[in-house]
Amino acid sequence: MIDQLTAQIREKKAPIVVGLDPMLDYIPEQLLRDAFREYGETLEGAAEAVWQFNRAIVDAVCDLVPAVKPQIAMYEQFGLPGLNAFKKTLDYCHEKGLLVIGDVKRGDIGSTSAAYATAHLGRIRVGNELLTPFGEDFATVNPYLGSDGIKPFLEVCAREKKGIFILVKTSNPSSGEFQDQQTGGRPLYELVGEKVAEWGADCMGENYSRVGAVVGATYPEMGKTLRRIMPKAYILVPGYGAQGGRGKDLAPFFNEDGLGAIVNSSRGIIAAYRQSQYAQYGEARFDLAARAAVLDMKEDLRQAWER
Amino acid sequence: MIDQLTAQIREKKAPIVVGLDPMLDYIPEQLLRDAFREYGETLEGAAEAVWQFNRAIVDAVCDLVPAVKPQIAMYEQFGLPGLNAFKKTLDYCHEKGLLVIGDVKRGDIGSTSAAYATAHLGRIRVGNELLTPFGEDFATVNPYLGSDGIKPFLEVCAREKKGIFILVKTSNPSSGEFQDQQTGGRPLYELVGEKVAEWGADCMGENYSRVGAVVGATYPEMGKTLRRIMPKAYILVPGYGAQGGRGKDLAPFFNEDGLGAIVNSSRGIIAAYRQSQYAQYGEARFDLAARAAVLDMKEDLRQAWER
Repeated sequence: MIDQLTAQIREKKAPIVVGLDPMLDYIPEQLLRDAFREYGETLEGAAEAVWQFNRAIVDAVCDLVPAVKPQIAMYEQFGLPGLNAFKKTLDYCHEKGLLVIGDVKRGDIGSTSAAYATAHLGRIRVGNELLTPFGEDFATVNPYLGSDGIKPFLEVCAREKKGIFILVKTSNPSSGEFQDQQTGGRPLYELVGEKVAEWGADCMGENYSRVGAVVGATYPEMGKTLRRIMPKAYILVPGYGAQGGRGKDLAPFFNEDGLGAIVNSSRGIIAAYRQSQYAQYGEARFDLAARAAVLDMKEDLRQAWER
Repeated sequence: MIDQLTAQIREKKAPIVVGLDPMLDYIPEQLLRDAFREYGETLEGAAEAVWQFNRAIVDAVCDLVPAVKPQIAMYEQFGLPGLNAFKKTLDYCHEKGLLVIGDVKRGDIGSTSAAYATAHLGRIRVGNELLTPFGEDFATVNPYLGSDGIKPFLEVCAREKKGIFILVKTSNPSSGEFQDQQTGGRPLYELVGEKVAEWGADCMGENYSRVGAVVGATYPEMGKTLRRIMPKAYILVPGYGAQGGRGKDLAPFFNEDGLGAIVNSSRGIIAAYRQSQYAQYGEARFDLAARAAVLDMKEDLRQAWER
């Protein structure tokens, strides 16, 4: 999958992942009304609105970007119907040729981590059948529990040719509370970065490892150091746009080959129609506003990766 | 909820939580056959077997313990049907008067953490309705992202009178890889413990905080230190039994009032029928074997909390 991701980034000249993190607030009134008319003001109704919204966004951007990143929390908050919308979105993205990064930030130990890895990246044996529970291509993983929590993911990645992105330095203001703590002369996030490089060494694709990292756009200096520590890790970069990161600041996340990083934007794309810059599209053409925002982001990011 | 938990622990004299972490391996042949006959060798069939297994365990132990802890990964691995079994189990436990700790180890930032908190502990507004997505009483939370990831949970806990257990020192062998790193003269897990005490101070129930901690039974010395650092935090203790912890070693996790800790056992209870000690029950009476294992655990734990 990491090789497919690299190939698609090259082909589309877009190291961009669209964060499919729909809040009901972002969804145009008309879509909500239609969904509520059919299913009532229920979890099913909300999930239907989310799904219809996603479908339109995916249709509008699928030729421009290599991947999407649905944030599962935004679906889990609508219970089972929400997770059904997550699964429908994922399957639809695959139909449209997009890679799917499940932003699930799972992490546990031993058989429990194995179960999460199976749920999102693997297949499970039931009697004589081998079945796919969710079936993303990549998943994000939390490292707090150490190697015991990561290794089951590595095994599934090796078997299924899938990939993970391990949280190293997150984009939020308080990420430093624990991640920046000095441990043996360097901050914890560097230690985690070293482990990412180590875990990734046995999980190589053609040029990049199946074990990537999450490093926030909001910390480009740290990104520079981490880029050096984990040269073969693809870096998934959240925090662009709405959280403050800008294209020109993101050069340190990329390697000399113009690859090695993929930048996420969620709100900045899917709710673009609410920004003054894209207001001309109006609520009804939210999908075209999203497309315009992707095209602008593509231009903005050129400064970061084009050599 | 924390007051209800304390009251139930007192009343039942059992600081015990039964981990409902069913693997297909644990489920008696007959239950699997029945489920597959009805639903085929499908995710639905597996989920049905899990649900029937859980129901029998819950019936057998619900008068003995205050709470259960379903590990959501074990359900997620069966996709949507698995999560449906999670929800049915949760609702059934509530019917039977049990408190439910969702072992979900979620954690993200800002609106995403808020969505997870809503999903598991809160209610969500859809149109004019306020709906419950999953509805556990407690959830486990990963602290790696810092306060930004925790605060949305605190808000939901305050509003809904729910509780969380934050991962501080996990029970697995490699938990020390990051958690034991020296940071400013003390290990990271102590720093996390200090934050748990701080976050919990504004979230008090009668005697204990709504913000608890996870500390593994396998590290009793660290448990002793953490007990002192977080005197008002309930400690959820995994790693008893199968992972090596024993009753007499768990005294450091309890306060002088005989409260302050609740010990989890999963495999040791739900798959008790496979241990030589409970072999007389046989596979068909797995539920009675589980009951016997709870009664033995209750006795074993007396050494830890009885003053």
